[in-house]
Amino acid sequence: MTVKEAISELTLLQKKMHALSHATGMLYLDSVTTAPVGTAEGRGETMGILSSMGYELFANPATEKLLKFLREHEDELTEQQKREVVVLTREYDQISKIPQDEYVSFRILINEAQSVWHKAKDEDDFPAFAPYIEKIVATLKKFAAYYKPDEEPYNVWLDQYERGLTMSTLGEFFAVLKETIVPLIHRIKNEGRQIDDSFLHGHFPIEKQREFSDYLMEVMAIDRSHCGIGETEHPFTIDFNKRDVRITTKYHEDNLVSSMFSVIHEGGHALYELGKGDELMYTCLDSGISMGIHESQSRFFENIVGRSEAFVNLIYPKVQELFPEQLGNIDAHQFYLAINKSEPSLIRIDADELTYCLHVMVRYEIEKMLFSGDVDVYELPDVWGRLMKEYLGVDVPNDKSGVLQDSHWSGGSFGYFPSYAIGTAYAAQITHRMEQDLNIDSEIASGNLKGIVNWLEEHIYKYGSMYDPADLFFRCCGEKFDPKYFTDYLTKKFTKIYDLNQG
Amino acid sequence: MTVKEAISELTLLQKKMHALSHATGMLYLDSVTTAPVGTAEGRGETMGILSSMGYELFANPATEKLLKFLREHEDELTEQQKREVVVLTREYDQISKIPQDEYVSFRILINEAQSVWHKAKDEDDFPAFAPYIEKIVATLKKFAAYYKPDEEPYNVWLDQYERGLTMSTLGEFFAVLKETIVPLIHRIKNEGRQIDDSFLHGHFPIEKQREFSDYLMEVMAIDRSHCGIGETEHPFTIDFNKRDVRITTKYHEDNLVSSMFSVIHEGGHALYELGKGDELMYTCLDSGISMGIHESQSRFFENIVGRSEAFVNLIYPKVQELFPEQLGNIDAHQFYLAINKSEPSLIRIDADELTYCLHVMVRYEIEKMLFSGDVDVYELPDVWGRLMKEYLGVDVPNDKSGVLQDSHWSGGSFGYFPSYAIGTAYAAQITHRMEQDLNIDSEIASGNLKGIVNWLEEHIYKYGSMYDPADLFFRCCGEKFDPKYFTDYLTKKFTKIYDLNQG
Repeated sequence: MTVKEAISELTLLQKKMHALSHATGMLYLDSVTTAPVGTAEGRGETMGILSSMGYELFANPATEKLLKFLREHEDELTEQQKREVVVLTREYDQISKIPQDEYVSFRILINEAQSVWHKAKDEDDFPAFAPYIEKIVATLKKFAAYYKPDEEPYNVWLDQYERGLTMSTLGEFFAVLKETIVPLIHRIKNEGRQIDDSFLHGHFPIEKQREFSDYLMEVMAIDRSHCGIGETEHPFTIDFNKRDVRITTKYHEDNLVSSMFSVIHEGGHALYELGKGDELMYTCLDSGISMGIHESQSRFFENIVGRSEAFVNLIYPKVQELFPEQLGNIDAHQFYLAINKSEPSLIRIDADELTYCLHVMVRYEIEKMLFSGDVDVYELPDVWGRLMKEYLGVDVPNDKSGVLQDSHWSGGSFGYFPSYAIGTAYAAQITHRMEQDLNIDSEIASGNLKGIVNWLEEHIYKYGSMYDPADLFFRCCGEKFDPKYFTDYLTKKFTKIYDLNQG
Repeated sequence: MTVKEAISELTLLQKKMHALSHATGMLYLDSVTTAPVGTAEGRGETMGILSSMGYELFANPATEKLLKFLREHEDELTEQQKREVVVLTREYDQISKIPQDEYVSFRILINEAQSVWHKAKDEDDFPAFAPYIEKIVATLKKFAAYYKPDEEPYNVWLDQYERGLTMSTLGEFFAVLKETIVPLIHRIKNEGRQIDDSFLHGHFPIEKQREFSDYLMEVMAIDRSHCGIGETEHPFTIDFNKRDVRITTKYHEDNLVSSMFSVIHEGGHALYELGKGDELMYTCLDSGISMGIHESQSRFFENIVGRSEAFVNLIYPKVQELFPEQLGNIDAHQFYLAINKSEPSLIRIDADELTYCLHVMVRYEIEKMLFSGDVDVYELPDVWGRLMKEYLGVDVPNDKSGVLQDSHWSGGSFGYFPSYAIGTAYAAQITHRMEQDLNIDSEIASGNLKGIVNWLEEHIYKYGSMYDPADLFFRCCGEKFDPKYFTDYLTKKFTKIYDLNQG
């Protein structure tokens, strides 16, 4: 085999993997947007077959041989080819380390856990779900030992979602948050002014909200010839390649801002995928690098741009044009205050910008305890209640608004939550760096976000998965991740919004 | 290899082929319903890869060996397994008979021909497209010689779309049509009453038409949990399996009946796919058997049911409820007459029930001449004009309303048109047979078409591709295809509608 032949084999292998994942993604998108309700069985059959075709294609000795050969001829590869070999070698090592029967048993466990969780949440019956948490954590600990026998199991899973992230980094991060945000929340409660947001909960016809989504995507400089918008129960972004990205939202007739911030959030994810380099198409590098970096992009647009006064000033004439009866008597500043109202609450996905990360911190503490064995699974509701009281000052009335609220654990995703918080914090530091090149408020005032998007494309998007998240972050920001940018940003913003004494 | 092992290999092969075709179908459906305009490139890449994966999976010596082994152990197979082996052997023989490079060249020719045809039609420029017809026919003749060197090439292609159909059968069929329908059209023109259909061309809001579609599908007893409806430029039906079928329609704000009959027509195709036997799922037998039989099902619902007075009486209260301003003063009988108005016209897809098959006859005559070499491709516009005048009595003003109107030839589909006409005629004979068991008008009057659908399921749908079309037809009707049922039906119906002297 020549290096040239090996490279074309590598390219073809990646194209085939990409095609199978495109197909599976399309079937998934259809299932949550368009498919009739009774069609799950045949789709499951097809997705199962496509997934085993992908497994057979990749997890076989020919791939191992090919990757080994290319590693031995590293000197003859381009930077991108080297990176493809690194990423695929990592994937190959992981896949080949878990015995196939154990992997299949885990998939079956997860399938069962998901339906048990749905029912348990509906019926507020935590004990029904508890044994599944126990079994899933036990399996994940075993798998972690297969992957990296010398590493703490929970660190292994953190690393899955955000390469390089450890409990040591997260410990520092959450400690800083706890020190600054928890007291800030208490000050707002005791000394802050009252903010009226009642006008956000009027009647907002869906047809008008759809027009609003189109407008928001236009302002965000999202190329609609390559990015569609659909409607689903839970908003998400899916990309098939850099020229075919879809976002979804959910409209609530009695709530304007729910879909507004979904669209801006998913739009941020979409811009990342749309901005990747052309040369990465159909390779394993053609996607955002990690959960954390992805979330930094969605949260940047949702919070730092979308909830800024400059952005409200830009879009408010359109908001009033679309909803003259509902918002004709409300001025832009009132609207700005209302969308930034902060109030400790029970449900993570409804939390405001200030309290959001504390919800994540509760989950992080619990995941750590479960992996270290410091908590019995049946004690989780109590632990949950105690932490929510300590961080957010709220009382948890039942498990469905508490420990049962999220689907992640039932899907086997432990170590995933922290990437939401860390990504949110990354965004503040990236903003700080961006401000050295751009005046963000002036960019926004110019009428659309093209200048900001171009900056992000140059510093983040175009690299796709070329660099691990910490490397990419360092390249972009010129320094390591530091949570103080985030806490400073929140402190400054909410001190002003709530008119607190600065001192 | 044991027979049992061979059968599980056969089952797995079919499941994989099915999964790839499900995926490709899904990508296609997305492309015409939802996908943003700039996404064709990546989809083309994926569809190309999936299609070559399917080719590699099927067209290899292992498949040949497997099928041969199973043919040698035919005695140990069930009826269904025997049929799977027959059908797959046929496909294998065909695929392996065309050299792969010639097949690829043909696909490239077709791709080019399709875009040339689009432009030629827009610009009314037949000479630009003519050389493609010539090249496509030459290739199809060559391929036909690979498949069946001893058969007339045009018969080989007729057989592709409707197994067993030959020029001899079609010659008789069209001769009977010409003898009966052409004079009937002339009598209507000279002696028929005037029918007013102006009220069908008012303003019909799309939202109301969507409601109407839902109602029509309900009346047709289509299970919506397994059948969706979308919107596309050209209506069609696609099935992923018997529990996942999608139809599409196109709404015209100034025309109520265009989408109405699209929905009923595609609904007929959908019922066929929804009614196949469970045991056929994920095998090569899990689809309607042929173009002609499929068209018999769609035309049965569109014309024989959908344009009957009983059906109009059933649905007309709902029609008036949805469109009170437009149709409040029109009674059911006026509506019935209007939807059956017959008028020779230029465009096949807009033709009424009576004149439709004559449009097909024009194409059939021309295809025959092209394959026998009896016409030069540049003479086609003249031949077209002459035949349209002879059969329909209309003058063709230009080629875009003439020989350039259909996309089929540019896609390489010669021998396909006749299946539209033959299917339409099958429907009349199937109706005659059904009347021996059911009173169709009473079934309709009962409120929905469940009784009719059940009969069709029992006599046609459930067999999927278990029998070749002529066998299935004979099983259903108890006799061979006879065009007189169709001409009798048309003569009786239109004599009454146009109030002609019966004699």
